[in-house]
Amino acid sequence: MFSPNAQRIAIIDLGSNTARLIVMSAIPGYAYHLDDEIREVVRLREGLNEQGLSAPAVARALVTLRLFKRFCDSSHVDVIIPTATSAVREARNGAAFMTQVAQEIGLNLRLLSGEEEAYYATLGALNELSLTNGYVLDVGGGSAQIAQVQDHRFYRAVSHPLGALALTEQFVRTDPIASQELAAVSRFIDDHLDATPWLNKKKINLQRRLVALGGAVRNLAKMDAVRQSYPLNTLHGYRLTAVALQENIRLLATLPLAERRRLPGLNSDRADIILPGALVLQAVMARLQVEELTVSINGLREGLFFEHFWRHLAYPVMANVRRFSVLNLARIYNYDKRHAAHVRFLAGRLFQQLRPLHNYGPAEQELLDAAALLHDLGAVISYQDHHKHSQTLIINSGLPGFTPRETLLIALLTRYHRKGRPVLEGCGGLLCTPEDEEMLLRLAAILRLAEFLERGRNATVDDVTAVWDDHTLRLTLIADEYPAVELWEARRYAVDLLESAFNRGVTLESTAPPDPWFMPVAP
Amino acid sequence: MFSPNAQRIAIIDLGSNTARLIVMSAIPGYAYHLDDEIREVVRLREGLNEQGLSAPAVARALVTLRLFKRFCDSSHVDVIIPTATSAVREARNGAAFMTQVAQEIGLNLRLLSGEEEAYYATLGALNELSLTNGYVLDVGGGSAQIAQVQDHRFYRAVSHPLGALALTEQFVRTDPIASQELAAVSRFIDDHLDATPWLNKKKINLQRRLVALGGAVRNLAKMDAVRQSYPLNTLHGYRLTAVALQENIRLLATLPLAERRRLPGLNSDRADIILPGALVLQAVMARLQVEELTVSINGLREGLFFEHFWRHLAYPVMANVRRFSVLNLARIYNYDKRHAAHVRFLAGRLFQQLRPLHNYGPAEQELLDAAALLHDLGAVISYQDHHKHSQTLIINSGLPGFTPRETLLIALLTRYHRKGRPVLEGCGGLLCTPEDEEMLLRLAAILRLAEFLERGRNATVDDVTAVWDDHTLRLTLIADEYPAVELWEARRYAVDLLESAFNRGVTLESTAPPDPWFMPVAP
Repeated sequence: MFSPNAQRIAIIDLGSNTARLIVMSAIPGYAYHLDDEIREVVRLREGLNEQGLSAPAVARALVTLRLFKRFCDSSHVDVIIPTATSAVREARNGAAFMTQVAQEIGLNLRLLSGEEEAYYATLGALNELSLTNGYVLDVGGGSAQIAQVQDHRFYRAVSHPLGALALTEQFVRTDPIASQELAAVSRFIDDHLDATPWLNKKKINLQRRLVALGGAVRNLAKMDAVRQSYPLNTLHGYRLTAVALQENIRLLATLPLAERRRLPGLNSDRADIILPGALVLQAVMARLQVEELTVSINGLREGLFFEHFWRHLAYPVMANVRRFSVLNLARIYNYDKRHAAHVRFLAGRLFQQLRPLHNYGPAEQELLDAAALLHDLGAVISYQDHHKHSQTLIINSGLPGFTPRETLLIALLTRYHRKGRPVLEGCGGLLCTPEDEEMLLRLAAILRLAEFLERGRNATVDDVTAVWDDHTLRLTLIADEYPAVELWEARRYAVDLLESAFNRGVTLESTAPPDPWFMPVAP
Repeated sequence: MFSPNAQRIAIIDLGSNTARLIVMSAIPGYAYHLDDEIREVVRLREGLNEQGLSAPAVARALVTLRLFKRFCDSSHVDVIIPTATSAVREARNGAAFMTQVAQEIGLNLRLLSGEEEAYYATLGALNELSLTNGYVLDVGGGSAQIAQVQDHRFYRAVSHPLGALALTEQFVRTDPIASQELAAVSRFIDDHLDATPWLNKKKINLQRRLVALGGAVRNLAKMDAVRQSYPLNTLHGYRLTAVALQENIRLLATLPLAERRRLPGLNSDRADIILPGALVLQAVMARLQVEELTVSINGLREGLFFEHFWRHLAYPVMANVRRFSVLNLARIYNYDKRHAAHVRFLAGRLFQQLRPLHNYGPAEQELLDAAALLHDLGAVISYQDHHKHSQTLIINSGLPGFTPRETLLIALLTRYHRKGRPVLEGCGGLLCTPEDEEMLLRLAAILRLAEFLERGRNATVDDVTAVWDDHTLRLTLIADEYPAVELWEARRYAVDLLESAFNRGVTLESTAPPDPWFMPVAP
C-alpha cells in the first residue's frame, strides 16, 4: 500500500479462459496502485454444451473462487467486486452456478452482459489511454466485444461469440491448424462482423483509432516487443502494426504446438488457443482500415476498479489522462508538491520566453511539465544518484496516456535534471528521432536551471525573465530577497548546459540587491 | 523525507580542504536516510601562517557558511550541528573567525579537538561497519586521526598534522612530485607515526583490522573500484589492498597533474593533493601490518549525526550494526512488518530443520533472515517485477555492516524470492565463489517456500516441520485452519525449486483437516 490511508479493493473477473484477481490500493479520486495479482487458467468454457457448464469446469471455478475469497479475507481487502462474463452468461446452468458461489463461498458474482463487458473494458482503457474518438476491441476467451468511443466516452458496443478459446474449441482439430479450418474460422469471424453495420462504413473516418486489449492481444504484442527489443517494461500503449500481426499469424498458423510453446514472448498456456484471437484482431483492423492498434493492459477489471475510484464523478473517466497519470505517479511516491510545482512553474516560464530560440510548442512543454513534477521521484530509492532512480521508476511504472516515446523522453529528462550531458540512451532507434536528441538537450537544460533556481526548495526565486542577443542570454531572477543559494548553485551546475543548448553565453542576475555577504570568492 | 514524522538534521563540517553539508531525515532510534548533500572546496587551510587563516580563505569560508545556513533555513531543517576542525583549531585567528561566524551568520561553530574529530569519525564508522577491535584512520585535509577501537567502542586516538592538503602545501613544489620531495613527505609521516607508541607494537595482533575514511581514501578506493568494475553502487565496505594502493601511488607520483586529472575515478579537484594522503595510508598499513583496509563512507559528519540519533543510548553505537541496517532499510521503505517477520520465521524454521541437508550455519542464516525482511521492498517501485526492484534497491542503498559479497547475496535472494532460477548474475567473479551459487539456490528455495507459505499475508501457517529420506522431503504445515491459499500457491510456485535445491521430491501437507472445498481440480 502506498499510503496507510488507502483502501484495498479486489476485483475478481471469472472469464471463459482465465480467472483473475487484482488488488488495488487506492485513495479514491487521488491516487491508486496495483498491490497484488493472481491469475488462474480455469477454462470455464471447456466442455460447455446445451446442458451448460461442464461439471469439471464448475469444480475448477469453485476451487479458484474459494481461494480468491480466502486470499481477500486474509490479506485485508476492504472491498471485493466479483464478476462473471460470457461463459456463465451463455450457460443454461449459469444461474445455478452463481447461486452455488453465493451460498458456498459468499461471493455475489455480478453477471455482466456483453454490453457491460464492453463498457467496463472501455472504461479501463479510457482511464489510461488518450482516446477521444475510436474503437476498443476486447478479445476474451469466450467472446469479443467491440465498443465505439465518441468524445472520450463509451458510445455503443456489440459482443460477438469470437473469443479465442470459443473459436478454438469450435473449429480447430488439427495441429498446426489445417487450411480449411483456418478458412472456416475466418468465415465465421467475417459473418459476425458483417452483422454490425457501424463497423462497416464505407467512408473512412480519420479518427478511427483502435485500442485492443485482453490476454490474447497482450501476448501478441509481447511476441512483437521481444522481436523489437522494446525498451519499456510495460506493454501499455504498445503500437502493434498490421504487418507485425501478420507475422505472428504466420508463425502461429504454421508451427506445431510444441514449437509454438517455445515462441519468445508467448505464454505457453496460451499457445494452443491464441491464433483465432489474432485472426479476430486482423479482421477488425481490416474493417476499420487501420494500420496499427494501441495495446491497453487495462480492461474489464480496471474498468470496474475505476467505477469505484471515480464514483464521485458523473462519468468515471478522468478528462485528462496524461495529467492524472503524472500526478498519480508523483502522489504514490509521496512527492514534495510545493517544490515540484515551483520547478514546473519556473521551467514553464523559461520555456515560454525562450520559444523564439527553440520553436517548441505545447507537446514539448507537456513533457517538460511532467518531468518537472517527477524529477525527484528517485529520492525514494536513495539520494545518491536519485536522478537515475527517477528514470528507472518511470521506465518501470510507465506513464499511462503518454506514448512510449514520450514516456522515455520524460524519463530521460528526469535523468538529466541535475547532472550529465543528455544522450538518448536506452531509447531504441525505433522510438526516438535525431531531433529528439536536440529537444532532450534543450528541455533538460531548462529543467536543470529551474531545479537549481529552486535549490533552497522554498520558492525564493519568484519568477525569471529572459532577454538575449546573438551572443548572450540574460536571465533575471525576480526575488524579494537575494537568492544566494540559487545563484550559487545555478551558476555552478546549470549554466553550462544552458549555454550549450542555446549556443550563447548565459548571465544570471537578481532583482533583489546583491548581498555582499554572498559575493563569491574564487577558491 | 521517508516519513512525515521524521526530523531533518543538518551537519556542517568545515574542514581544511572541503566544507560539507549533509541533511539527514531521521526518526531518532528508529530509521534514518540521507536527504541532501552539498560539497564545496573551500581550502580554508590555504595560506595559513603564523598570523592565522588567510583573508581570502576566511572570505571563502564565510560565503560558503552563509550559503549553507541559508539553505538550511529555506529547506526546513529542524536541527543544525555546525563544526570546524584542524585549520580553525591551529589558526591564531581561529577564535576571531568563529566569533565572526556566530555574529554575522548565526552559526555557533563547535570547534572539535583532534581527539573529538577522531571520536566522531569512529562513531560514524562503527555505526555502519562491523568492527569489534581495530583501528580507524581518518585522513583529512589538515590533519589525520588514528583511533583505536576496543570491544566495539572508541578507546583512544591521536591526531597528527598529516592531512593531504597540509602535506602538499608543506612539501610538494614539483609536478610530478620530485623524488626528494616524496622522500621528505615520507620521512615526515614516519617521524610523526613513530611518536605514537601504540601504533608500533612489535607483537602482531590478529584483530588489527583497519578502517579508513575521508575524501582522499574514498577517492583512492574509487580509482581501484573503477579498475575492478566493482558491481555495487556504494564504496562503503570496499576492501582496498596494499597492492592496489601501491598501484595508485605509482600513478599519482609519476603522472603530471594534467594526466592525473584524467585518471578514472579520481575527482579532478583532488588530483593535486591526494598523493600525500595515499602515502599516509600506506605508512599506517605498514605499521599495523595489514594487507588491506576497509573503506568507510561515513566519518565525522555521520558520527555527529549518530550522537543525535542515538542520544537515548548510553553509548551512541548500535550494538548489532548488520541487524539495524536491515531494519533501517525495511523501515525507510515502509515494510509490512507482520508479513516480513512471519516469512523470516518460517524460513528460519526450514533452515534449521534442513541443516543436515545443507550444513550451513549462522552466517548463512543471517543472509536468509535479512532477505526475508527485505524481500518485498521493491513493491514500492511497482508490484510487477517487484522482486527485481528489491534487488535494485539493495544494490543501490547498500547494507552497512555486511560485506559487498553478503550484500550482493542478500540482494540476489530477494531477486529470486518468487520466480526464476537463481544465478549469480551481476556478482563479479571477484566477490562470489562457485559455492555461493549452490548456497544461493538453496537459500532462495527456502525463502521462496516461506514466502508462498505466507501468501495470504495473515500467518495462516503457524509453523512448518520437515522430515525426509533419500527420495522425499515431507513438509507438514501447522495450522488452525486449512491453509488453502498457501498450499495452492506453494505447490505451484515454490516446490519445484525446493526439489531441485535438495534433490528430492517434496510433499506438502497440513495438520488442519483438508477442506474438500479446496481440493484441486486439474485445469
